[in-house]
Amino acid sequence: MTGVGIDGVGMTEFASETDDSVLELGSRAAERALADAGRPGEITSVHVGNALAGQLTTQAGVANALTSYLGIEGARADRVENTSASGASALHRGIDAVREGDSEVALVVGVEKMSGGATAEVTEAISRLVHAREYAQGLTLPSFAGLAAGAYLDRYDAPRESLAAVAVKNHANAVHNRFAQFQKAVTVESALESPVIAEPLRLYDCCSMTDGAAAVVLCRDGDVDVSGVASATGTHAVASRSDLLDFESVRRAGKRAFDRAGLGPDDVDVACIHDAFTILELLELEELGFYEAGTAWRAVRDGETDLDGSLPVNPGGGLKARGHPLGATGVAQIVELVWQLRGDAPAERRVDGPETGLAINVAGFGNNSVCTLLSG
Amino acid sequence: MTGVGIDGVGMTEFASETDDSVLELGSRAAERALADAGRPGEITSVHVGNALAGQLTTQAGVANALTSYLGIEGARADRVENTSASGASALHRGIDAVREGDSEVALVVGVEKMSGGATAEVTEAISRLVHAREYAQGLTLPSFAGLAAGAYLDRYDAPRESLAAVAVKNHANAVHNRFAQFQKAVTVESALESPVIAEPLRLYDCCSMTDGAAAVVLCRDGDVDVSGVASATGTHAVASRSDLLDFESVRRAGKRAFDRAGLGPDDVDVACIHDAFTILELLELEELGFYEAGTAWRAVRDGETDLDGSLPVNPGGGLKARGHPLGATGVAQIVELVWQLRGDAPAERRVDGPETGLAINVAGFGNNSVCTLLSG
Repeated sequence: MTGVGIDGVGMTEFASETDDSVLELGSRAAERALADAGRPGEITSVHVGNALAGQLTTQAGVANALTSYLGIEGARADRVENTSASGASALHRGIDAVREGDSEVALVVGVEKMSGGATAEVTEAISRLVHAREYAQGLTLPSFAGLAAGAYLDRYDAPRESLAAVAVKNHANAVHNRFAQFQKAVTVESALESPVIAEPLRLYDCCSMTDGAAAVVLCRDGDVDVSGVASATGTHAVASRSDLLDFESVRRAGKRAFDRAGLGPDDVDVACIHDAFTILELLELEELGFYEAGTAWRAVRDGETDLDGSLPVNPGGGLKARGHPLGATGVAQIVELVWQLRGDAPAERRVDGPETGLAINVAGFGNNSVCTLLSG
Repeated sequence: MTGVGIDGVGMTEFASETDDSVLELGSRAAERALADAGRPGEITSVHVGNALAGQLTTQAGVANALTSYLGIEGARADRVENTSASGASALHRGIDAVREGDSEVALVVGVEKMSGGATAEVTEAISRLVHAREYAQGLTLPSFAGLAAGAYLDRYDAPRESLAAVAVKNHANAVHNRFAQFQKAVTVESALESPVIAEPLRLYDCCSMTDGAAAVVLCRDGDVDVSGVASATGTHAVASRSDLLDFESVRRAGKRAFDRAGLGPDDVDVACIHDAFTILELLELEELGFYEAGTAWRAVRDGETDLDGSLPVNPGGGLKARGHPLGATGVAQIVELVWQLRGDAPAERRVDGPETGLAINVAGFGNNSVCTLLSG
């Protein structure tokens, strides 16, 4: 146990494009989390997870601007950036601040306005998240994911449908999430007929560009306890790994978080997994110890990760269907877990009485991961 | 006392333009700090202070990239951004991580390559650090500083030379700092004859564009103790302040840091003050409680802030003469304080036997400040 709890959560409706500014998105999520917390206590620190506001919008110094926009000057503030895991890194920073005693009540806001830039500009910014040498060779996150997916299907003799099954499940969950970008179901057939992005991955295997924000209020006596949180890097260059399917940062962050919490995979009742690509949900479930290598696809196929399965995964729709506003995702995962642990999720996507939840947020192609364990 | 110490420090030579990349600058400072620390202990976390790499260079996810570049994968990593106080915010984040027990040995690296962008691009990025409404009205950091300088001189009946005296002192100190961008003396006369930037401020009243990096190694048993660290925001819009000369964030951060350390201004033997503009050194010295409002200029005039004065200020040359690579500055201040507290600074600019040092790093025009107190 960290001694830190979550007292309130909130998020904006995720969408492919909004008219709202970064500050409007962030403050809306913050105000919803503060209203949910229902405590008039003074916010003593603000930690903003954001990846690309400086590049894609004119909003500089987003933590300072947001703190002032919220009218809570005097609070300490900083922005934490860890590419697509910026949200969880900001959460981790906030947890450390409360645990260390520097802050009494911390507000963590993850926010991203990906529509702020032209599509080519956003694509370029995201392409730069891989190692410079690999970028120069034309390798991108989707192409790495495609290579990994092909290797996984081949090595474990898994059918192509096993990837589509991840998308089908996550979209089915998002149908009942009014905050999700895609509140629509997809079928294995439609997934397999969607346009090719990076063989064998197709459109429905990949997350989208999204605008959105999510927020949590941390303090010493919240409704939900943070049992453990841990971060870890892996190699930046994928070529430096002995195996394309090796997500060492996920394995390390998961092991550290479990060790700190005194828990193991068997204790987890619901999980939010970083499914930027369907293949990643399978690989991360295996790296975290939920399934043996090469077997997660069978678990998904057999419904074990469905809402009523033994380990419900991504009940809010995941990155795939809820959307993936880079800096917001890691915080949105926590919002979803809190709703599930408190029993507040809509009945149609509510997991039955979970006591422990896990979230894994991954930067780049597995080069920096943050794992968080919550107990209701 | 925080229970956290500094075990090693290092920095690069600051320069107006280098051929080195952000990773080369950051890793050079890191390697110097690690060599200085002289302990083979494993680095468990890396915290990078950086303001503008994403905008001015092609280096995305700088914390992850630097951790991998240094060959210490497995460590946790994040980047902290707080505009011109990014370095101190990263330090604060690292201190919390070690204090909280999440990290055994933290490496904090502040880095900025301001020459990465075209001058107009850098100027635009920095101009965006003020409130959007004030930016739209054409107000910039130099123009705010000019307005504040004029108000200060008028209100306290101080001569124009009192601003120049700050530059003269800091340049004189930088002559003996081989890491400084400007290792040359200036005179009151040359300062008063330099080109006007924003009346009454002239070129020698203003910091420069700089490339550079600085690093510190934090652990539980360092040579120098972190007695206290605290951050605080003020209003983002300067127009929201009741007084143009009110730097509430500096006052709040200073008071918090002093309270936490159980120290007061009289205990400080050497200070690194955020002199992005000469007027700021005077205002911050007053807000921190070293001098009454409107009197710091007399202290500077009378030599009290000289190396052999009662409160030596900016013995390394300050932002004015050492240079101001945004994300590096807050860490470079700590490097200088550690050198002074250990007695390692060159004799020509060594303060006589200091036991306690203070650093203040300020974001934007006083909208977020971080104060750190060190004990030798």
